Amino acid sequence: MKSQMTLRTACIVSTGDELLRGTIADTNAAFLAARLRQHGVSLRRIIVVGDDIQDIASALREATDLADIVVVGGGLGPTTDDVTAQAAGLAFGRPLVRNATAEQMVRSVMARFVRPVPECNLKQADLPEDSEILPNERGTAPGFAMRTQRGLAVFLPGVPSELESMWAVVEREYLPSRGVFHRADLSCFGMGESAIAEKLAGLTAQHPEIRVSYRAVFPEIYVGFEAADATLVTHVAQRAHRAIGEAVFDVRGLSLPKVVAEALKTRGLTCGVAESCTGGQVARLLTQEAGASSFFRGGVVAYSNEIKSRLLRVSTTDLESVGAVSEPVARSMARGAMLALGVDIAVATTGIAGPDGATADKPLGLVHFAVALRDRTIHHCQIFNGFARTRVQRAAAYRALRLLLDAVRESTC
Amino acid sequence: MKSQMTLRTACIVSTGDELLRGTIADTNAAFLAARLRQHGVSLRRIIVVGDDIQDIASALREATDLADIVVVGGGLGPTTDDVTAQAAGLAFGRPLVRNATAEQMVRSVMARFVRPVPECNLKQADLPEDSEILPNERGTAPGFAMRTQRGLAVFLPGVPSELESMWAVVEREYLPSRGVFHRADLSCFGMGESAIAEKLAGLTAQHPEIRVSYRAVFPEIYVGFEAADATLVTHVAQRAHRAIGEAVFDVRGLSLPKVVAEALKTRGLTCGVAESCTGGQVARLLTQEAGASSFFRGGVVAYSNEIKSRLLRVSTTDLESVGAVSEPVARSMARGAMLALGVDIAVATTGIAGPDGATADKPLGLVHFAVALRDRTIHHCQIFNGFARTRVQRAAAYRALRLLLDAVRESTC
Repeated sequence: MKSQMTLRTACIVSTGDELLRGTIADTNAAFLAARLRQHGVSLRRIIVVGDDIQDIASALREATDLADIVVVGGGLGPTTDDVTAQAAGLAFGRPLVRNATAEQMVRSVMARFVRPVPECNLKQADLPEDSEILPNERGTAPGFAMRTQRGLAVFLPGVPSELESMWAVVEREYLPSRGVFHRADLSCFGMGESAIAEKLAGLTAQHPEIRVSYRAVFPEIYVGFEAADATLVTHVAQRAHRAIGEAVFDVRGLSLPKVVAEALKTRGLTCGVAESCTGGQVARLLTQEAGASSFFRGGVVAYSNEIKSRLLRVSTTDLESVGAVSEPVARSMARGAMLALGVDIAVATTGIAGPDGATADKPLGLVHFAVALRDRTIHHCQIFNGFARTRVQRAAAYRALRLLLDAVRESTC
Repeated sequence: MKSQMTLRTACIVSTGDELLRGTIADTNAAFLAARLRQHGVSLRRIIVVGDDIQDIASALREATDLADIVVVGGGLGPTTDDVTAQAAGLAFGRPLVRNATAEQMVRSVMARFVRPVPECNLKQADLPEDSEILPNERGTAPGFAMRTQRGLAVFLPGVPSELESMWAVVEREYLPSRGVFHRADLSCFGMGESAIAEKLAGLTAQHPEIRVSYRAVFPEIYVGFEAADATLVTHVAQRAHRAIGEAVFDVRGLSLPKVVAEALKTRGLTCGVAESCTGGQVARLLTQEAGASSFFRGGVVAYSNEIKSRLLRVSTTDLESVGAVSEPVARSMARGAMLALGVDIAVATTGIAGPDGATADKPLGLVHFAVALRDRTIHHCQIFNGFARTRVQRAAAYRALRLLLDAVRESTC
């Protein structure tokens, strides 16, 4: 079956009024897109239409013109708004006939629940002539595949669990084995998307055969490099790494919390936090992945000065003389947390997240950080500009993680 | 402006390689679809294409044929893969020119961060001739609108927060007004969208003139009621409140963290947290709004048992005999936090966020909560089922806030 077709490009057609009403986002398309990609099939377009025979038929015709394989999700159920099979018959000029294999499937599933099997369910077996049946192990609607002039059209139910389980059959029966694209990823923090693009402008212009992509998940930026030539991809990614510099914290496309967790686990170090302006965000990032208990012991959210001195033994003299947002207080918080929590390494944040609290010498967005290790304490200070409060907090929490990572990587414990 | 156009139908064009790779689902389209619907505009189709000038231009032409208003999301950034403006110029036959208004906007935003302003950012001001500018308050990319033969095309950045905030401008400037509509909102937590819809099915069927909308920001569900008749809206919202019951925590559409903050501030109470399985999430939610320092003092993230006993004085006997995930430990954590932090009220969480850690008698998702006040400690226990780790943590953090809210509302201090 596979050998007879060359399926290089795809188009997804998602059907359902609920998608056009905005009740749900089209997660089926994201699932299918990722899986097609794994097979080296290039997705050209996703078209979303409502439960209307003419609209679906037009979308099917356009999709067939655009791509070798058309994957359709939705509209195979038993109700009157399920019209995908009729639209397929219309689009490809094939009459609907009751498919014996499909009828048998519907009957055997339905008979478990209700006898006699309702006619509306048997309607699900009325499919375009010469359809090939795709069994559905999680629902009543059989899927089907049709040969088209250019390749193939497959029709799957819209319920995500059914669509996903039936997709495995499509992969096995119809798709080319995995593709030949190579990819490299750089995870960055501390430099904006446009600043990174500027740094890579020359390199990317020099290598038009490399597809460069950016993905921003504030405050992280992921840069991807893709091409058929593995050596070239590696080479360009390495040059890009040098061009971007220390904003790159990982060369596998992992997130900063994951990389920090990995570094701590590899070295067998325990950590803790002391947070003022980040208000629990650093602890939350460190505990969001499974297995955090192997390295994260705990933290103190020292939002008020009283808690800073009470639980972290920050000197009240320092708090009064230089204020909570200062290098000495950040350092005391980190050391205090290391001791109070009994951990190998602790990171502290104290700053002005805004919108209030700025003074003449302490601007909005100013954050002091410290990382305490047994033998030393590192200080860092940064002004996070022009963002909303939650963005200052989030960017500061990632900066804390980055400082923690650097300290762990340099540590000799 | 509005009176000159009749915008009845819409088409959404979403651009971005990350959508065709399946890295993210197209949530922007769902947002836009729901908002268009609120304005009585009928959405005909959503087209998703990659970062390719020709593909975007074709999609724009097709969309313009299909509908009065075309809403485009993505591809306005400063990098080489941002090509939507060029595609628009191509599709509508208008040369790109540097737009003075847009240039001024880019310069004033960028000047806050970097001088001189990089050329790649100024590229964002190169727009099709005769474009009308849509200001972007959350990023550097200005949006723009173009008159088309049939109506209008609007171009917004793909970053969800920017797209959503700029959409408000589009509604105000271009969309048909909905007349004088009255609105009531219920904020809910602890019941799913479909369960709420089920409870409201009879009521909404009875009042087809009321437009009911649901917005889910996990784990909160906001239900809106809208109609021209203010008395009717109030009446229906009150009946809906009774039907949904105690899952409603606010009748103004506010978020749970905001309502908790307001309740504490009104009563002049200070609060703190003791978190195990939620790992800092409760503290983060309480500190994300400005002014948190007036009621939030701090917290202890007691992830390990040692920290629970060391900082919160949880009895090691309890930890060994009944385990960390238990009623006695939750109660001790809350009381310990109240005393250690010197606050009026403290909330504690201890549970099994998963995927590991479940035992025969302590299932995955089990969380014990306690709220300590001066005169009493309240306990609550709940199993959060079938969710991923981060969803268990998030749902549990909101449950902690809800328990805190109920305790504050009942408190007589």
